[in-house]
Amino acid sequence: MKLSRRDLLAGAAGVVAVGATAAAQSPPSDPSKVRGKPSRALGQRAAAEKPQRQVRGTASSGTPHQDLCGTITPADLHFERHHAGVPEIDPKSYSLLIHGMVERPMVFTLADLKRFPAVSRVHFLECSGNFGGRAGSAELTPQQIAGLTSTSEWTGVALATLFREVGVRPQATWFLAEGQDAALLTRSIPVSKAYDDALIAYGQNGEAIRPEQGYPARLFLPGWEGNANVKWLRRIELSDRPFMTREETSKYTDPMADGTARIFSFLMDARSLITYPAYPVTLTRGWVEINGIAWTGSGKITRVDVSTDGGATWSPAKLQEPVLSKAHTRFRHLWNWTGGEAVIMSRAADETGYVQPTREQLIASRGVGTVGYHLNPITGWHVRADGSVVFKQESWT
Amino acid sequence: MKLSRRDLLAGAAGVVAVGATAAAQSPPSDPSKVRGKPSRALGQRAAAEKPQRQVRGTASSGTPHQDLCGTITPADLHFERHHAGVPEIDPKSYSLLIHGMVERPMVFTLADLKRFPAVSRVHFLECSGNFGGRAGSAELTPQQIAGLTSTSEWTGVALATLFREVGVRPQATWFLAEGQDAALLTRSIPVSKAYDDALIAYGQNGEAIRPEQGYPARLFLPGWEGNANVKWLRRIELSDRPFMTREETSKYTDPMADGTARIFSFLMDARSLITYPAYPVTLTRGWVEINGIAWTGSGKITRVDVSTDGGATWSPAKLQEPVLSKAHTRFRHLWNWTGGEAVIMSRAADETGYVQPTREQLIASRGVGTVGYHLNPITGWHVRADGSVVFKQESWT
Repeated sequence: MKLSRRDLLAGAAGVVAVGATAAAQSPPSDPSKVRGKPSRALGQRAAAEKPQRQVRGTASSGTPHQDLCGTITPADLHFERHHAGVPEIDPKSYSLLIHGMVERPMVFTLADLKRFPAVSRVHFLECSGNFGGRAGSAELTPQQIAGLTSTSEWTGVALATLFREVGVRPQATWFLAEGQDAALLTRSIPVSKAYDDALIAYGQNGEAIRPEQGYPARLFLPGWEGNANVKWLRRIELSDRPFMTREETSKYTDPMADGTARIFSFLMDARSLITYPAYPVTLTRGWVEINGIAWTGSGKITRVDVSTDGGATWSPAKLQEPVLSKAHTRFRHLWNWTGGEAVIMSRAADETGYVQPTREQLIASRGVGTVGYHLNPITGWHVRADGSVVFKQESWT
Repeated sequence: MKLSRRDLLAGAAGVVAVGATAAAQSPPSDPSKVRGKPSRALGQRAAAEKPQRQVRGTASSGTPHQDLCGTITPADLHFERHHAGVPEIDPKSYSLLIHGMVERPMVFTLADLKRFPAVSRVHFLECSGNFGGRAGSAELTPQQIAGLTSTSEWTGVALATLFREVGVRPQATWFLAEGQDAALLTRSIPVSKAYDDALIAYGQNGEAIRPEQGYPARLFLPGWEGNANVKWLRRIELSDRPFMTREETSKYTDPMADGTARIFSFLMDARSLITYPAYPVTLTRGWVEINGIAWTGSGKITRVDVSTDGGATWSPAKLQEPVLSKAHTRFRHLWNWTGGEAVIMSRAADETGYVQPTREQLIASRGVGTVGYHLNPITGWHVRADGSVVFKQESWT
């Protein structure tokens, strides 16, 4: 707004009229007249900022993407998913056994793991069940649509380093990863992933990994479905075949259009999510910076297109640099909302040439009534004439 | 260690002998036999992990670099420095006035700032007084030596965008930035920095900026001394000369060897800090991965050399990719400690060709008894024959 001289003076002095009876806990009307709080050992969020994970039952919680503006997810807002709760593990008692088809079976303490050369990498982690938007209300937030993906800087030892230490035999092609939670979650992983980019991670965003992320150490498989990134890792067994555990037979398989089911569908394909504007925001007319996150398990996001007319036409969004491999990438696109109804959508593409599919394409390849995992359709937000924004529901049957 | 079959079985079962009378709060001896904790809205650190800022009086606290392993600093561990405490500011009442040599003086609310196109960038922030190691004990941690530097992903609006909005006049070459803390901290900044890379930041590591970092919005000047990055920013005034405030005359100037003093010494020069091994670690013989952080206000770190013989010989360390401009860069260097005394040191160089100076070089250019700001000497850790590690003290007089 343009200002008068009087406005200027009031603005400069920070004068805001508030009742003299304001509660003692309210911020002061002129903060410059009050001595502030002293330094302290741990910072806290501002009182007005209350980002929270959305708790779904006892076994998961989602990242509040509608409250976030960058690419890093604060550790206490990283989504969680577990099958028997978050175990409490004494780091001094922790050990990781590597055995099976190896020359030298070994047990590594946490200190042992930390003594090896370390690497730090920024990567997303996504639950393969990350898509809550298929049913229910139009009143769904970005968190409710796709809260089960988050990005951290992970630090740990390359699994390849440990595999060389124990002498993995040439005929070993798979390994079992076993957690020490009460679910004893186990998954079979191709050995090739270890020699590609797998980590045993003990650090997250610079500090010790959080309990619900597998403290004190987890398997981390960049770009692969969350469930396979076994947390609270206690045992790795090398073999020449997969172990066919419950988590890869009765669950975490994908029904297909022809009536069969995919198994070992580790890769998380490219996806994008507009995080602003989104429910429950109400827009005012004028320029709006549409923004959101895009990610792919196949490497780097190369392009995000945005549509403001329900998919009839698309324009390339600007990607926030640096675009990192297998990490959330923020995209931004300026849009002049002049009023009237609109549907805004985003579509990600990655360095393999893969393009995020439409709902119709997904149903064609995976079957009518598609359920379960690895659902990454293009989704949209419906901007109503009054500026209110709701999730654009579509039928999945 | 190599294992017997009996060891293997014990390891696989996670069996650890603990007294039956262990306190109820201790972790279970076998976490796989106990249902874990349910999901929750905000995560917490593991009970065994207690990283904390080191509080120095009421006006500052430092990042515990010895506890960190990546490049991102968790927001609650970002160093703080303030001159009259941390003010409490109602984000709904917040406004930023831009006036002086402009065509259209304007006041921006927080919502106004967030409506402009945004950028996110990973950058360090360092207090120009960041070097507590000149005096005192050898028993100093990395936090005590250089805790007043941290790295975050900052999000905000480019100051250039706002300057175009208000129409900064061609003759304006400096601007005043004024905070709304009780210190009314004010600094003069060249307008050219706004057109280079300055931000008005409202996001930190993906969420709202923390109170001690200037909530709800601060000036952010990548690579420039912390004090100039005015927090709780309420006013910017454009002028054709610097304002000569207290914080750039009586303070934040640098005494030089010839008896004069530097003024407006904004740039933070290249520096490095070994964070492991460091006091109070005790090493055991064998391979040690020396690691630490390096940073420069001039752009990217191009090289970090490590010496394990007190500076007689140097070897290039490995830089963790991606190396980002004006951000902490982690370096790592493998060293086989065979016992005996050693002094380990690191030396950073940046893309301008600048090389971190020795203490002698600093004293030669800045004077004997050098005090104050912008002290970035190469520092070392003394590894004693028993493996204990202490700070290598050097005389500054």
